[in-house]
Amino acid sequence: MKLWQNNTEKTNETIQKMVEDFTIGEDKIWDLYLAESDVIGSMSHTTMLKEIGLISENELKAIKENLNEILDLIQKGEFKIDEGVEDVHSQIEIMLTEKIGDIGKKIHSGRSRNDQSLLDIKLFIKKEIKSIVEKTTPVFKELLKLSEKHKTDLLPGYTHFQLAMPSSFGLWFGAYAESLSDDLELLLAAYNVADKNPLGSGAGYGSSFPLDREKTTNLLDFQTLNYNVVYAQMTRGKTEKITAMALAGMASTLTKLATDVCLYMNQNFGFISFPDELTTGSSIMPHKKNPDIFELIRAKCNRIQALPNELTILTNNLPSGYHRDMQLTKECLFPAIISLKNCLDILLVMLDNIVVKKDILKDEKYLNLFTVEEVNKLVLAGMPFRDAYMEISKRVKNNTFESNVLEVNHTHEGSIGNLCNDKILELFTDKIKRFK
Amino acid sequence: MKLWQNNTEKTNETIQKMVEDFTIGEDKIWDLYLAESDVIGSMSHTTMLKEIGLISENELKAIKENLNEILDLIQKGEFKIDEGVEDVHSQIEIMLTEKIGDIGKKIHSGRSRNDQSLLDIKLFIKKEIKSIVEKTTPVFKELLKLSEKHKTDLLPGYTHFQLAMPSSFGLWFGAYAESLSDDLELLLAAYNVADKNPLGSGAGYGSSFPLDREKTTNLLDFQTLNYNVVYAQMTRGKTEKITAMALAGMASTLTKLATDVCLYMNQNFGFISFPDELTTGSSIMPHKKNPDIFELIRAKCNRIQALPNELTILTNNLPSGYHRDMQLTKECLFPAIISLKNCLDILLVMLDNIVVKKDILKDEKYLNLFTVEEVNKLVLAGMPFRDAYMEISKRVKNNTFESNVLEVNHTHEGSIGNLCNDKILELFTDKIKRFK
Amino acid sequence: MKLWQNNTEKTNETIQKMVEDFTIGEDKIWDLYLAESDVIGSMSHTTMLKEIGLISENELKAIKENLNEILDLIQKGEFKIDEGVEDVHSQIEIMLTEKIGDIGKKIHSGRSRNDQSLLDIKLFIKKEIKSIVEKTTPVFKELLKLSEKHKTDLLPGYTHFQLAMPSSFGLWFGAYAESLSDDLELLLAAYNVADKNPLGSGAGYGSSFPLDREKTTNLLDFQTLNYNVVYAQMTRGKTEKITAMALAGMASTLTKLATDVCLYMNQNFGFISFPDELTTGSSIMPHKKNPDIFELIRAKCNRIQALPNELTILTNNLPSGYHRDMQLTKECLFPAIISLKNCLDILLVMLDNIVVKKDILKDEKYLNLFTVEEVNKLVLAGMPFRDAYMEISKRVKNNTFESNVLEVNHTHEGSIGNLCNDKILELFTDKIKRFK
Amino acid sequence: MKLWQNNTEKTNETIQKMVEDFTIGEDKIWDLYLAESDVIGSMSHTTMLKEIGLISENELKAIKENLNEILDLIQKGEFKIDEGVEDVHSQIEIMLTEKIGDIGKKIHSGRSRNDQSLLDIKLFIKKEIKSIVEKTTPVFKELLKLSEKHKTDLLPGYTHFQLAMPSSFGLWFGAYAESLSDDLELLLAAYNVADKNPLGSGAGYGSSFPLDREKTTNLLDFQTLNYNVVYAQMTRGKTEKITAMALAGMASTLTKLATDVCLYMNQNFGFISFPDELTTGSSIMPHKKNPDIFELIRAKCNRIQALPNELTILTNNLPSGYHRDMQLTKECLFPAIISLKNCLDILLVMLDNIVVKKDILKDEKYLNLFTVEEVNKLVLAGMPFRDAYMEISKRVKNNTFESNVLEVNHTHEGSIGNLCNDKILELFTDKIKRFK
Repeated sequence: MKLWQNNTEKTNETIQKMVEDFTIGEDKIWDLYLAESDVIGSMSHTTMLKEIGLISENELKAIKENLNEILDLIQKGEFKIDEGVEDVHSQIEIMLTEKIGDIGKKIHSGRSRNDQSLLDIKLFIKKEIKSIVEKTTPVFKELLKLSEKHKTDLLPGYTHFQLAMPSSFGLWFGAYAESLSDDLELLLAAYNVADKNPLGSGAGYGSSFPLDREKTTNLLDFQTLNYNVVYAQMTRGKTEKITAMALAGMASTLTKLATDVCLYMNQNFGFISFPDELTTGSSIMPHKKNPDIFELIRAKCNRIQALPNELTILTNNLPSGYHRDMQLTKECLFPAIISLKNCLDILLVMLDNIVVKKDILKDEKYLNLFTVEEVNKLVLAGMPFRDAYMEISKRVKNNTFESNVLEVNHTHEGSIGNLCNDKILELFTDKIKRFK
Repeated sequence: MKLWQNNTEKTNETIQKMVEDFTIGEDKIWDLYLAESDVIGSMSHTTMLKEIGLISENELKAIKENLNEILDLIQKGEFKIDEGVEDVHSQIEIMLTEKIGDIGKKIHSGRSRNDQSLLDIKLFIKKEIKSIVEKTTPVFKELLKLSEKHKTDLLPGYTHFQLAMPSSFGLWFGAYAESLSDDLELLLAAYNVADKNPLGSGAGYGSSFPLDREKTTNLLDFQTLNYNVVYAQMTRGKTEKITAMALAGMASTLTKLATDVCLYMNQNFGFISFPDELTTGSSIMPHKKNPDIFELIRAKCNRIQALPNELTILTNNLPSGYHRDMQLTKECLFPAIISLKNCLDILLVMLDNIVVKKDILKDEKYLNLFTVEEVNKLVLAGMPFRDAYMEISKRVKNNTFESNVLEVNHTHEGSIGNLCNDKILELFTDKIKRFK
Repeated sequence: MKLWQNNTEKTNETIQKMVEDFTIGEDKIWDLYLAESDVIGSMSHTTMLKEIGLISENELKAIKENLNEILDLIQKGEFKIDEGVEDVHSQIEIMLTEKIGDIGKKIHSGRSRNDQSLLDIKLFIKKEIKSIVEKTTPVFKELLKLSEKHKTDLLPGYTHFQLAMPSSFGLWFGAYAESLSDDLELLLAAYNVADKNPLGSGAGYGSSFPLDREKTTNLLDFQTLNYNVVYAQMTRGKTEKITAMALAGMASTLTKLATDVCLYMNQNFGFISFPDELTTGSSIMPHKKNPDIFELIRAKCNRIQALPNELTILTNNLPSGYHRDMQLTKECLFPAIISLKNCLDILLVMLDNIVVKKDILKDEKYLNLFTVEEVNKLVLAGMPFRDAYMEISKRVKNNTFESNVLEVNHTHEGSIGNLCNDKILELFTDKIKRFK
Repeated sequence: MKLWQNNTEKTNETIQKMVEDFTIGEDKIWDLYLAESDVIGSMSHTTMLKEIGLISENELKAIKENLNEILDLIQKGEFKIDEGVEDVHSQIEIMLTEKIGDIGKKIHSGRSRNDQSLLDIKLFIKKEIKSIVEKTTPVFKELLKLSEKHKTDLLPGYTHFQLAMPSSFGLWFGAYAESLSDDLELLLAAYNVADKNPLGSGAGYGSSFPLDREKTTNLLDFQTLNYNVVYAQMTRGKTEKITAMALAGMASTLTKLATDVCLYMNQNFGFISFPDELTTGSSIMPHKKNPDIFELIRAKCNRIQALPNELTILTNNLPSGYHRDMQLTKECLFPAIISLKNCLDILLVMLDNIVVKKDILKDEKYLNLFTVEEVNKLVLAGMPFRDAYMEISKRVKNNTFESNVLEVNHTHEGSIGNLCNDKILELFTDKIKRFK
């Protein structure tokens, strides 16, 4: 049942079925995620309609009561889109009309499905970004906690994937905490782009109704409006894409962490391990403890990193104005949001169970990590840098290099001896506050 | 139930549930698509095992009979992966073992899940590429038929999106037919890469069993083997990616066709139309006949065009050897295969119903399309080209340009008057034969 | 000449040449863009070295004087990287050492080329983002000016690329202004990520020198530090990628504008035009006025839109720590920055010369744009919406639809009659202030 | 100097300069790569023009003699595009006209710059694909040679990046040889798409001249024609994209090899090394031997892997017909071709100098690689597989696992003991023959 279809006669049922399957696709699955936003949007819209005199107080009351019941169903997980109903907007309008008759149809006055969809998506994205920030926070804090706990546990630092200089687990965990903190910038940019009210832009060219868009902006708690109605419509696709960029930014941090973990769990490194129940065995190799969870964090985050490009290809080179192509942004973006949240959840479990190997650098094979320290010692003793470098270089070449240092005495901000985790926490906390 | 899990005690059920949800994800949905290939692969593998003396004739008989029953279930759509069973391979082994006890487990001898998955995916991809070729054929033929039917129906030709020279529906339809023909090259490349037997490569490092890989190659009707077992494992991800490239190539043709259609249906062009039941109305604009199907063909094909890049990001910068990341290639590739086939199906319906406007070029606004013809007439009458160009240019500028041509007399191969559709059909037919 | 090469003997000159060509590539071209930042960074670094007692006041004075001379050369465009010199850092050190001997080498104390490159890139990106914002401002203002100038010039509004409802040039120009305003969010996110001092992170694992990183942070006017030195190194690639995302965001707006322009210049629309000298003719078609500039804006901006993905592929799945791969971020990002600035410059010229057609909607073919208005009139006269919709629908079908409206009376925020350009200007101005 | 510009007066020199810089960009650099193809194309075109009577035998003679002189200049590297000349086609026409007057202009009869560019690009791509195949051959053979040389040198095989089973350098080198062989499939697909004559398609809508397109097809040694002239124009962008896919396919193989090499050179693995002059030192760490060349092979190949997507974004969602956007395909594709060839050249040098460590698996830490062999031994001795697996599993857990195997006895096709390098060579050789 389509509410708005032309009265043309159907010639061929099979074709109609094909067309319907093709055009609706899996859209109804993803529309369910918008149900809550849709109801909330309709409440604010009708409240405004009443204020500008387009519906009566009683009508508003009837609409709100029934929308609240639907909202209740949604929050209890009992809402669904019936067979033959095209989308979430139609489903809600039908349910309303069944209860209160033609009054129910008035929620559509002064709106098009275009601005209704836009609104739903923006409200949903705002909620989901906040949810991601909430799930990031404990991961961030766990990383800082591990950084403090392991601040004296040294680790080889590699450049060009070659042994370079001593690093530490304090640095390693803390780096990913600070990375997550920086990732909030993109999330905030996405949040700010989403946090503008498109309601009232109609099909993209406004409405002859005397809508009060400031009113709905306030009711829906948006920072401001997408003023220009043509621009409001342009934010479809654009909002999803910037959100995808923000997801991809954080996914990139998780990918790198997972890559490090898979490396460090490899037996040639053996720097970290996890309890057996958090690794996976092999069907033919009895000694295996595979880091499947981190491989899948990496893989899932890599899919997320591919998303901004997918949305670019989907939405690019189209002229202004709504195109049906936009329908597919939901099936691209929504699973990625869910996936990133799942990755954060499981990462927290894994970090909580990570086992760090002690005294790694005491192994002779890491001796060369201390050449820089030895060069510096010669320099401090008065030898010019190039000469000191050549001297130590020669010892390395002749296999006569020795070092009795085996520890590092770095004191500047952000170094092994001075992690500045309090400062990093401060940066994070300040940014969190900017999501209103 | 995992067939191969280590006997470690579970400490925390919730965590185990999270881990299982995270690692299995939606993999079981996509594994179902491999069930048929998996059974066929097991039949060939065990036939070979019997030939090299690792199982008895009776064992083989029991295995084959029961695999045939499972195959029957699969083909009737009644096969499913039970709750708690990890994947399609386990499900089939369990079903077999329930029937014939430990003999059932022998289908796994000399195999790893790695080469089993590789095999399943290659058999599946081969089948699906053939299926796509089969669905392309009627679309190709419909385009050629329309090209012949409309060979005298002229159409403005644009360059830089500006009116340029006369074109024709004969050319336009034929161009997309020839494009589909060229798209077979990539499909064939993908087919050839998939058409090599990976079975026997084990976990990527071969097996101590004296497997006869030529035997299974013949039984499974592969062109040849992935000889080197380390390379066989490298084809995981690579095969999916080249298949994605081939899908993307054809998707690009459909995207362009859909873009043209959406343009030509626009009222400023009005070159083509479709019956009402194949267009979509608007909830607020009673005059609308929206080309939703073509917008969605474009959009779905654009998602497919994004796929090779997604697989690149998913599989890139990983060292050789299997990684769990590869599990996700299925959920990337398989929906795209389904989607492209759906697009071909609906496109055939649409082309079958397309209505072409007659006498488009008689509209005065297209007069300038004939300037080149008029320049050429002056040239043939003896005037140097640059002078003729300047003369006609002046007339256009002064709005005095006229033409009594309004038809074109192009005779060379592939031009309006000589479409060479028979040659294009020949190219297509020759290529089809190369998919064995 | 490499300052730091091992003293191994060269066996084969040809190979050495190949290796050098391969490893340096076109890096020296792009390094030139960093020369200014490199000198400024060295000044701040040595100032700090003096404060912590590692160089004397006289040494600092000598260094600063000579760095200032080099800076002068750079700003006059006379600085170059000599044959045989590997990069900008080496060139500057060599020039300094030629003047003041071994003192010149001290600019390298407590630094690695890794943090030096990081610093240069961050300073460069900050400068370039500001430059882009500066070039965006007049384009934004020109768009607002055109919006006001043409606020009563109506234009067909399309949805699904089908005639939908009346729009206006006021809306159209204003929409792109507001879009540019929103694009500042991503630029600001990139700016904030770049605006953190990496100096002192050394090769990615800190330094045994007692560096004062807060000091250089202040001297270089950074908001704050990349505290954790391992994270500081991680920002290589990440900073370039987020900058690329920000460029891509704005490029997406320009792509859409260029797509609209190419469409509107097409003779089937004919909504806008440009003076002949800003369009391009054809070598064989005397009537052509091609929109080459907008096609190239679209194409160049599309290349920019591909950039974030390229940087993702370049930097992804690498473990933490510096990799030489990072060298190529420069040759990816820098040309894109230049290209976007060129697009903004030429766009300003084009907008300044755009000619808008008057009275477009008086053409009968646009009559159906007013069906919604007529439906609304019936509704206001008391007819239920669905009935009014059916009535007008019938008239459209029977070709009896008429309208004496031909104007629109939209009054709400952001609509044809109430563009809110002052509000959009305010949003833009507020954001500009956040780039410090 | 533009040969075809409209006679409009210039109002503003600065603007004209901006427009010219913007529209020509770096196109002239890349056009130089097409000079040879352009001359060869013009020779064949004019030969055909003579045969259909449009130019005289003497005119053809004059044209050919002078084109041969220009070809000579090109091949000596002395050809250039003069200041003020727009592109390679204009430059050649100007040079010709300077020598033989207006006859020179006749090379343009019956052609447009669109089909001329198409032809040049296709001839260039054919030549370059062959050149890549030629450069791939010695790399392929070197890999096979190394595979044979090191067939008994064992190496740990990893799955999930965890120690799994024994592998060998024979397998490892051979795998990359076989991978390159498979990569020829995509190159062949690209070659076949490029190997069709577009000449005669004019601006995309054919010509009123009675061109003999079969004739030029034969003269230029194309397999066949792009028959349909509208399709011929569609191959612009499409040909470049499929070529990019083919480059990306091979780049993916090189990326993986480079990733393995960077890993194996890492001191925690230490499986391979290179002479000092082929590695790079560090400015502060005297012990470093960095694998810069392989990092840059990886990075450059990753840029190439991003290319198909860039071309997709550049060319997508455009309607049929030429667009100026296409100009930029050259600056995307051509550098990638050069880059891939450079990577193949330097890779050959590196492989020629690779040093493989002996007896790696004798190190106790690799003991667990032999668990599968020990399980199999128990199985062969009669124990059921699951029991044997459990038994060995227990020993691994208790650190009592031992193995006196330390060698592998794999005999099947493609395994350590039976590399089938002759078969792989045969596959490669057969494919090479298909590039005609």
